This record gives sequence, structure tokens and C-alpha cells, in this order.
Amino acid sequence: MERVEVHASFGGRQEVWRHESASLGTIQQVGVYLPPQAVQGEKCPALLWLSGLTCNEQNFITKAGAQAIAAELGWILIVPDTSPRGEQVADAEGYDLGQGAGFYVNATQEPWAAHYRMDDYVNIELRELAAANFPVNGHWAISGHSMGGHGALTSALRNPGLYTSASAFSPIVAPSQVPWGQKAFTAYLGDEPAVWAEYDSVELITSGSNPELPLLCDFGDADDFLEVQLQPQRLQEALDRSGRRNARIRLQPGYDHSYYFVSTFFADHLKWHHAQIGAGS
Amino acid sequence: MERVEVHASFGGRQEVWRHESASLGTIQQVGVYLPPQAVQGEKCPALLWLSGLTCNEQNFITKAGAQAIAAELGWILIVPDTSPRGEQVADAEGYDLGQGAGFYVNATQEPWAAHYRMDDYVNIELRELAAANFPVNGHWAISGHSMGGHGALTSALRNPGLYTSASAFSPIVAPSQVPWGQKAFTAYLGDEPAVWAEYDSVELITSGSNPELPLLCDFGDADDFLEVQLQPQRLQEALDRSGRRNARIRLQPGYDHSYYFVSTFFADHLKWHHAQIGAGS
Repeated sequence: MERVEVHASFGGRQEVWRHESASLGTIQQVGVYLPPQAVQGEKCPALLWLSGLTCNEQNFITKAGAQAIAAELGWILIVPDTSPRGEQVADAEGYDLGQGAGFYVNATQEPWAAHYRMDDYVNIELRELAAANFPVNGHWAISGHSMGGHGALTSALRNPGLYTSASAFSPIVAPSQVPWGQKAFTAYLGDEPAVWAEYDSVELITSGSNPELPLLCDFGDADDFLEVQLQPQRLQEALDRSGRRNARIRLQPGYDHSYYFVSTFFADHLKWHHAQIGAGS
Repeated sequence: MERVEVHASFGGRQEVWRHESASLGTIQQVGVYLPPQAVQGEKCPALLWLSGLTCNEQNFITKAGAQAIAAELGWILIVPDTSPRGEQVADAEGYDLGQGAGFYVNATQEPWAAHYRMDDYVNIELRELAAANFPVNGHWAISGHSMGGHGALTSALRNPGLYTSASAFSPIVAPSQVPWGQKAFTAYLGDEPAVWAEYDSVELITSGSNPELPLLCDFGDADDFLEVQLQPQRLQEALDRSGRRNARIRLQPGYDHSYYFVSTFFADHLKWHHAQIGAGS
């Protein structure tokens, strides 16, 4: 791994690293925030943050104001790009497919299967890289925004034991049922409903995956994507049917889909993840 | 004034307004953060934030994480662009002259004099616009970054009574003595040393302008521009010679010139401005 950016931030360091990804077959960039505790050699819990459509590793680290609370609570933040990148990587017209729109799945269809293995990348390779290069203490939480909220929820629901807790801002919760998800899943995964269901939060909750996972989701009620793309009521219905105990959905009045929403509630999410470590151990 | 953006943020609203500027002869955009107190109709103190080279009204409002503390303390944030804008506005090659680089002066030289009247714009017109359109209570503080730190310090030093306090992050303090300032001042102001001195913080402090103004400046000691463009020792020497009581310069170890630096210390600056209201009233 090669460090390509470093900035002092809230007593710690906001860094960006570049590395060759074995799972993606590309060169990727990753944002890494090391709180003061980590800089001083202490092992810390880590939050994996998954960003939304069109983003790379920069959006969250420059716009979410996340470093303040990460420094206070002593959390490492790991922030990957949203897809494989590079001239050799397949792409498409439009912001919602191809580069910048990996949807955190392992693609099975051409021309995507060669590089679009974001599920393996974030849930296996990136965690191993982080463990080898940064003082992570083994506690992992996961969160994300929009497409990245979908990635966070499905990653944690599919992989019991991997993440202590999962949260999301404005997540796509039923990709099989909404235009963004249907377009991406058709391209990346083909038309096999059983494969789609493995990457669909509502389906995973309905089928009882990882039933003890603590979940927290915030939506803004002024989000332009709420009704067509996000459909939080599908998540609420699935949770109600499932009888999960530690799952909470909140609808925040007046908030939209932007990073102004994420920055307002990020501290609250990280405090919640922090509390889950104590609750689960 | 026409509102072109509105986002809920920390219980208040981050807005962007577009308006015709009489002093600039252009259409300008301005960021306005209204804290919850202002949204609820309470009159609030206002901070005028001046940004640095290449910035427009977006950089600070998306990257500084300033809304959290503004909401907590109840401050309105007014964030103008850094120059007149538009096809009819003179421009130059390079990032440090022309559009995005107004240096907060009233230009006297062609082709700049027609539109580059940023001193009048920020210190007269924008304050009047704010008073007419937002619930400002009459207490104004000013702050800024780099070129905008220069703008904040000189605006407050030149205009006793206008600002309760002035602070700056990585400011250009002696533009007459450093390459950025010399290039801009030669273009905008010609080669008259007396005119330059009116827009030079070190000269203004040396000549005893506004001697009771509370001042706070932070520099990062890992700032690549520190030695050539910023030269904080010139400010320290001028302050020492002047015998000013309420002026403080801090050198923050490890910090660079980026918004990671601004975001780390912005809450501290706003708390300081907040305390100055009480101290002066």
C-alpha cells in the first residue's frame, strides 16, 4: 500500500492509500482516518463506510465531518471507492451503472464479472488489508449512504459475525423492487431471482439472515429519492414481520439525500455503533 | 434574492442564494447557514466567512463542518464567493488572479476596476443584504482562510466598529511582501505603496488601525505555503511592536493548508467569537 495523501485532522490523521486489489484486479484508493488514539499506537475499533452512486473515496472524508466524533470516540474510519476503477474496467453511460456504481456485489455477468467484485473487496480483502496495516482491534462496524447504505446492510446481514452493528443513511433497501437496483442487478447478476435476493436487505431480513444484528437506519422525509428508489416502508414491514429486536428506522423531518443529512446524524450513528460494542461483548 | 439551494442541516438550514450585486455588477451566489434559533425566528449573531484562492461559496459550506457548532451556539454563517463571476468579468491565466482570486480589494486598475470591488461587496453590500433578508442581530464577526484570512483581518482592521472580532486560518498577512499578494495587488491596485498598505494586515497593525479589535489566527506548521506566502512571523512581529492586548497567533503542529485544518479548529474559533460578544458588550 502506498500513502498518497496525509492531513492532520482533529489530532489524528486523514490519509488516502493506493493499493493493488487482488479481488478487483485494479489499483484502488481508500480513505483511512486514524484517530489520535490510533496514531499513539492504541488498537481501535473500525467503521467501514460505503459511499453512494457517483462517489469515490473523497466524498465522505471531505464532506461528512466524521473525523470529529471518530477522534472523540477513538474509531478508525475505512472508506473505499464505490467500484473498480481504471481504463481497463468496463463502464456504462449514466451515473447508476459501471464505474462509481458497483453496488457492492460480485458480478457474474459480462462485461462486468472481470473486475466488479466489490462484495469480496470490501468484506474480505479490505478488512485484511486494514488488519495488516492499521491498528484495528477486531471490532468492525459498517455504515453507508444510499447505494452504500444498501452495501452496508447487505454486507452485515449476509455475514454473521463480521460486523458488530450496521447502520445506513438513506439506504436502498429493496434493490430488487426499485429502478436503480433492477438496472444494476440485471447487468451485474443476470436475471436469477435467487442471486438478487442475496443482495437485497428486505429479502435477507425476510429470510431471517443474521437475526441478532443491531440495525439503525435514518431517512430524510424531504429526500427526492424516497418514494421511488428507497421505499423505507418495505424495510419497516420486513422488520415488523421478522420480529427483530435491535432494529430501528427513523424518518428525519426536512432532511434530503445530501451529505448535509449525513453530517447531521453521523455522530449519532457512531455513538450508537460504539454502544453496540459494549452491548455485544 | 433568489434561493437556489436549501438543505436541512443540524436542525437549521444550509441555503445558497443568488442575487444581483450592485457593487460588483454581476450575479453572485452566497451560502447562508441559518441555525435552528434563526429558523425559529430568533435574531442571531452572524459570522462572515471569506474563502481562499480558487474557492466559491461551496467549499466552506460543504467541507468545514461548520454547521454543527453554528447550530449549537446559534450563529448565522454568511459565505460569499471569492470574486465577481460571469462571462463579462475579466479573468487571467493562473489560479491566483482574476475569477476565484478577488483578494477582497476594490480594484483601481483596468481591466479589473469594472467588477472587482470585493471590499465594498463583503463589507457593505452583503451586510446590508443579510440585515434585510435574515434575522441578524447586529453582532458581526469575520473569519476566513488563506486569501480569505487576509480579507477577514484587513476588513476588520480597516473598519473599526464593523466586526466584534476577527479570526483567520492560514492567512496571508503581509500581501505586499509575498508573491501571491504582490501579483494580485500590482494587477488590481497598481504600484502605489500607500494603496497596498490599506489592504495589508501587517501594515494596518503597524499603523495602529482599530487597536482594540480582538484577533485570533491559526497556522499549521506543515502548511506548504507557510514560509513563502504566509510568513506568520511578520504578523507576530507587528503584534509585538504594536502592544495589542487581545491578539493571539497559534502554530498548530502537523496541520497543513487544507480544509482538514479549518474543520479541526473552526468550532474553537466560533466559540472564541461567541465569547468576544460577551466581552465587548
